[in-house]
Amino acid sequence: MRGLLDDGFREPLIEQPSELDDLMNLHNTDTNHYIDEDDEGSIVSDIITDDIGTAYDDFQTVDWLRDQAKDRQRHKDTMMEGMMYKWFDAASGWMVVFIIGVLTGLVAGIVEIGAKWLIDVREGYCGEGWFLDKEACCWSNSTIIAQDYCSNWLRWSDLLVGTDNKMVKYAINYFCYICIGTSFAMLTVIFVMVIAPYASGSGIPEVKTILSGFIIRGYLGLSTLMTKSVGLVLCVASGLSLGKEGPMVHVACCIGNVFVRLFPKFTKNEARKREVLSAAAAAGVSVAFGAPLGGVLFSLEEVSYYFPHKTLWRSFFCAMVASVVLQSLNPYSTGQSALFYIEYDYAWHFFELIPFVILGCVGGILGAFFIKCNIFWCIKRKTSKLGHHPFIEVAVVALVTALISFVNPFTRKSTAGLIKELFSVCEWEDNSDLCDYSYSEKYNNGTAQSSNIAWGAPNARLKTAIWELVMAAVVKSVITVFTFGLKVPAGLFIPSLAVGGCIGRVMGELVQYITYLNRESSFLQGICPDMSVCTLTGLYAMVGAAAVLSGVTRMTVSLVVIMFELTGGITYIVPIMVAVMTAKWVGDFITPNGIYDAHIEINGYPYLDGKERFMHTSMCEDVCKTKKVKELKTIDANSVTVQDLEILLETTMYHGFPIVSDDQLNIVIGYVSRNDLIRALKCARDKHIDLVNASRVYFTDGLMRSNAGGGPISVSLGKVVNHDPICIEPKTPLAHTIDMFTKLGVSQVLITNRGKLKGIITRKDVLRHIDYLKTTDNGHNLF
Amino acid sequence: MRGLLDDGFREPLIEQPSELDDLMNLHNTDTNHYIDEDDEGSIVSDIITDDIGTAYDDFQTVDWLRDQAKDRQRHKDTMMEGMMYKWFDAASGWMVVFIIGVLTGLVAGIVEIGAKWLIDVREGYCGEGWFLDKEACCWSNSTIIAQDYCSNWLRWSDLLVGTDNKMVKYAINYFCYICIGTSFAMLTVIFVMVIAPYASGSGIPEVKTILSGFIIRGYLGLSTLMTKSVGLVLCVASGLSLGKEGPMVHVACCIGNVFVRLFPKFTKNEARKREVLSAAAAAGVSVAFGAPLGGVLFSLEEVSYYFPHKTLWRSFFCAMVASVVLQSLNPYSTGQSALFYIEYDYAWHFFELIPFVILGCVGGILGAFFIKCNIFWCIKRKTSKLGHHPFIEVAVVALVTALISFVNPFTRKSTAGLIKELFSVCEWEDNSDLCDYSYSEKYNNGTAQSSNIAWGAPNARLKTAIWELVMAAVVKSVITVFTFGLKVPAGLFIPSLAVGGCIGRVMGELVQYITYLNRESSFLQGICPDMSVCTLTGLYAMVGAAAVLSGVTRMTVSLVVIMFELTGGITYIVPIMVAVMTAKWVGDFITPNGIYDAHIEINGYPYLDGKERFMHTSMCEDVCKTKKVKELKTIDANSVTVQDLEILLETTMYHGFPIVSDDQLNIVIGYVSRNDLIRALKCARDKHIDLVNASRVYFTDGLMRSNAGGGPISVSLGKVVNHDPICIEPKTPLAHTIDMFTKLGVSQVLITNRGKLKGIITRKDVLRHIDYLKTTDNGHNLF
Repeated sequence: MRGLLDDGFREPLIEQPSELDDLMNLHNTDTNHYIDEDDEGSIVSDIITDDIGTAYDDFQTVDWLRDQAKDRQRHKDTMMEGMMYKWFDAASGWMVVFIIGVLTGLVAGIVEIGAKWLIDVREGYCGEGWFLDKEACCWSNSTIIAQDYCSNWLRWSDLLVGTDNKMVKYAINYFCYICIGTSFAMLTVIFVMVIAPYASGSGIPEVKTILSGFIIRGYLGLSTLMTKSVGLVLCVASGLSLGKEGPMVHVACCIGNVFVRLFPKFTKNEARKREVLSAAAAAGVSVAFGAPLGGVLFSLEEVSYYFPHKTLWRSFFCAMVASVVLQSLNPYSTGQSALFYIEYDYAWHFFELIPFVILGCVGGILGAFFIKCNIFWCIKRKTSKLGHHPFIEVAVVALVTALISFVNPFTRKSTAGLIKELFSVCEWEDNSDLCDYSYSEKYNNGTAQSSNIAWGAPNARLKTAIWELVMAAVVKSVITVFTFGLKVPAGLFIPSLAVGGCIGRVMGELVQYITYLNRESSFLQGICPDMSVCTLTGLYAMVGAAAVLSGVTRMTVSLVVIMFELTGGITYIVPIMVAVMTAKWVGDFITPNGIYDAHIEINGYPYLDGKERFMHTSMCEDVCKTKKVKELKTIDANSVTVQDLEILLETTMYHGFPIVSDDQLNIVIGYVSRNDLIRALKCARDKHIDLVNASRVYFTDGLMRSNAGGGPISVSLGKVVNHDPICIEPKTPLAHTIDMFTKLGVSQVLITNRGKLKGIITRKDVLRHIDYLKTTDNGHNLF
Repeated sequence: MRGLLDDGFREPLIEQPSELDDLMNLHNTDTNHYIDEDDEGSIVSDIITDDIGTAYDDFQTVDWLRDQAKDRQRHKDTMMEGMMYKWFDAASGWMVVFIIGVLTGLVAGIVEIGAKWLIDVREGYCGEGWFLDKEACCWSNSTIIAQDYCSNWLRWSDLLVGTDNKMVKYAINYFCYICIGTSFAMLTVIFVMVIAPYASGSGIPEVKTILSGFIIRGYLGLSTLMTKSVGLVLCVASGLSLGKEGPMVHVACCIGNVFVRLFPKFTKNEARKREVLSAAAAAGVSVAFGAPLGGVLFSLEEVSYYFPHKTLWRSFFCAMVASVVLQSLNPYSTGQSALFYIEYDYAWHFFELIPFVILGCVGGILGAFFIKCNIFWCIKRKTSKLGHHPFIEVAVVALVTALISFVNPFTRKSTAGLIKELFSVCEWEDNSDLCDYSYSEKYNNGTAQSSNIAWGAPNARLKTAIWELVMAAVVKSVITVFTFGLKVPAGLFIPSLAVGGCIGRVMGELVQYITYLNRESSFLQGICPDMSVCTLTGLYAMVGAAAVLSGVTRMTVSLVVIMFELTGGITYIVPIMVAVMTAKWVGDFITPNGIYDAHIEINGYPYLDGKERFMHTSMCEDVCKTKKVKELKTIDANSVTVQDLEILLETTMYHGFPIVSDDQLNIVIGYVSRNDLIRALKCARDKHIDLVNASRVYFTDGLMRSNAGGGPISVSLGKVVNHDPICIEPKTPLAHTIDMFTKLGVSQVLITNRGKLKGIITRKDVLRHIDYLKTTDNGHNLF
């Protein structure tokens, strides 16, 4: 990751320039561009290697059109094969997503169980067996001493025999808690730094970039998979303010990438492979939240780029399989598929839309502010010495997190547990701090049977708890700014939900108190005569959580669906939707990008967003004008020799070369990529010893008449040439070209005027042009 | 509709031919294709009308690229306006979907309430007021006499005083029931035939076609909206075997189309308007089933063509608004948003996947068979005299339906009621025919408290009921074949669900009986020791319903989501998914298209499916070769006069003309659509009386130097020309071109070889080519 982070995307191979001005004043004379028949020497035309068009270099962009063409060819070839093979071929798409689903479910279950055990290890160990977590330990024959504590479970202080001083024991436990947590974090960073640097972070920005057609070798490899899975267990247990949800998407994509190799249909075709990865991403979210439908929509809305109809259905299948497998492992020991299952199902009231909108605004502002701070810190990390000491940084953050978290009961407990508590409502005779009301007989006892929800004037413990909630929100927000971007696997979903949940709960208690004060007003009596369910504080926490998450990630439909699958509460779709929508609008007003897009931007990934509509009236020739490199290198089909090509390859670093009929007229007859050209030339040199530097190279398709004259042999590279590159006129609106890049998956377009080459535009050129537009006056409202 | 059905899509304007062979052997000489400067006379260049590019003729295809370019221009112009206008402009997209959502919810509520009342009117009327339905009538102070019958509600036989003969009364009621139902159906067909022929059918095939960019004037008009809404109420009440769900999509799209006119941003731009219509379609499904999420996915998966990211979120919003409005009207009087809400939530067992897969197979076979029969009958109707007597046809079908339905208790009741009964499970002491078990003490009394589900050996009433269910499935299937395609608004969802529900319930009873016989086996004892919940017959009905619906419509994800929103049963996603998947596979094996695509095909709509991957290796030149019309008409930019153009327009019916630099060389310099050319010439003739037949026409952009010499004035039509039409090489794979049509929304591509025009391909050409491929040996596995 270092290379990527520090240098932007590495660009060993650069794009052709597309400056029009240099080329506009060409002669207007035509020549016959077919190959002259007075050539001498025999022609060698079997220069074709197996991996033409399949092999991409690192940090290169996939040519979807070409991959699709290859897939169609493969499909045609399959027709010749036997029935069995055809069936296998047709079924392989389903088999691969099934395997990925099963494995994703398994890995998620293992991560969940491992993290649960390690979280408990920070407190103590099981006397019955060190490998048991607290729940399993206390499950077997053991005396339950207190809530979540039993005689079999030994705290670290119990090791120290000889003293009964409670203070000492407390200090020991505190010390162990912090030390073990910090050492987990440091272990993670060592793993990540030594084995797989790509395993750090959430991985979603990179997965997005990869799915958009970029190649990052090793990012989805086996070592990344192993490191990220183990690291995830460790760093979730370390107590750092992070979640395992984002990284699960990365893990699932790694599983997809590794196991897709069983099926050659996908391995050899980067475009097809990406369809499988989209399904894997859906499975990742599905297991992270127990939300298969939300996973599919997340994959569709947020991560995926090219999402054909079949992929939707396969993603759904993959997400369902993963979810079923995880559920059968039952790592949450609840039997519920919803992570934060809520039991209540009371109506909300229209007047509550006002606080929900306010929560949306708060979420949007907080999210945008979080993005700004986090990006500022990430840039600081990249540009200062800080970035060179990831180990120390992680250790410090982990230590500080542990120290601060311990003092506040809401930050001390596991984040998932905190969210669960915030989302729930106060039941009758609830002993929690958040439910410390002075129960009014009139409003509670009378209705205790019809609804079990308690409320009243806040007592002292609740008042303290509210302040602790506010502090927890502040602390979690600040710490997460420093955590997201560390060299450990780190997701944002759970911290965002926790912060939002705290804010929402506080808002809920406020509204609750206001309704309590005005409980005799005819307005409230009219709306909720059964006063005990007039304000659901848990619902406010839910809405707040959704709002903050929306402010941070700018997800919309998928977030609403995830929230509703996460909580099982279909009744509350409208409040959540209102808050999510407000948060997105407010957030977009402050910072245009969500956190993932912002990270894509600071890392300089060539991600061209195909989901937003490009609204500027730029034309393609404007892009050419803002390109830096001026010289356009072409191959003259009529006179090029082997040596010419080899010199061209040595002296330039371009990704590919247009082939023109004549250097003067520049009529385009094809395009050849650098990789293919190198491989073809090497193959020709290897196969034909009599190939000399002066051997002519032809680029026409098919065999040509071989004149049995003298002279050096010629070579025909027609098979490696794309004879029909996409060409557009200079005045074509840029928006169309962007559509071609994003929807068709073209990797470059040639700019031609009436067939004459004027330049080339690639994705990166478009991105540069958009950056340029942003810096000029015309830049507002690009999308 | 008649015109459409009978003649295929009308084709007053035809496409240019794209025969390559005629053009391949052109001279290869070049000339300067810029306009010669020795022209004389002044040049008129203000020939531009407001509606250039906006006005499409009926049955024409939308040029999305052009509409998008116009939208960008509009967006740019908006930047110049005041802040208020900008805000209004930005908000209008949300405002329009809000309005559509509210109105769709209202219309759906009115249709539901109206249909409920009219269904009751077939039985009798309310003594308290004729406008009350049975439920409202019995609600007020009235003695409940029997289940759903009270003293205030008068049967038609009660009008006949003087006789107490029960047989006579029964006969009178039967007669009234049939007569009123048939007259409703006949009333509907009169409405439809007289006011709005487009209001017939489900509308989904046409909505799909329209959203893909086809223009059918009046199909989404106000008169269609009114007729379809009223007709829907009448024909649902008529007792015909049809549902209101499909037509609700059409109604919602009508609402969208009518009310989008409030916002000029969308009215003037067919491409933008289609985004709103996609959202409206989502709202339609949302209100039809109370399934907002399913609606969005249905719109995404089934109906919509171009679905940008923003549309997803707006569709979701629109669907939610519609759903909330409908719920607040509460027409179902249940308070539940789910139409067939199921109360039970017991686990299913893995061994049950075998019957679920069998149900899937049955659903697939039945669905495919239904499509074949229905299409056969529709073609028969079109080609025989039958089609000329829609009135008689409807009357006969309605009469036969009423006569047959009355004898079977399952077909006699409302279809929605039947589905609800099939989906539910037998409760303890349930008196329904479907629950007539000989309760075994051992298996029921003992567990009656832990679960309320009863089962045992089937008794006589259940055995009869099973045969009645089988008959109901057969009768409904056969009648629906004849009903879908009548000249009345008719949806397929509810009949399909009912047929599938019957089959599934029968299968469930079978499995139940088998498990009952083997209840002592260790296998079953191991799986479900609590035997009373071993087989949920209601779940089988649900799975069967989903399977048949999938077999008929070939929906996938959206169907699963609709089923789960329809029933509220998140536990049963996996069984439903398995059945839907099997049904789709089996169905696709028998007939490749779902019912909607099949109807699109027989109606000859130019719908190019962008959701399936085109897998054939055809090239664009192959398309040109299979075109029928051979002559390619071009406009020579260098020598054309006003008269030439007028003759061209009179003698040809092509949609548009490529403009070439020279008739010999055929270098493409632009493309002009027929409509724009006609309007521009008319405008020029009107404005400039001194324009003569011999006036030269120029097509270059911008003002040209006007030589103040003599001669007739010239006219410049540069503004109406598309100077940068999409051009591709003849050997480009057809799949890429299809991608351009479907993903970019191009309406035609010019085939050029090195800048020289070789032909034109339009969507219709591609469709014809696909048809051609289907009839040849290469046709298998096109997608």
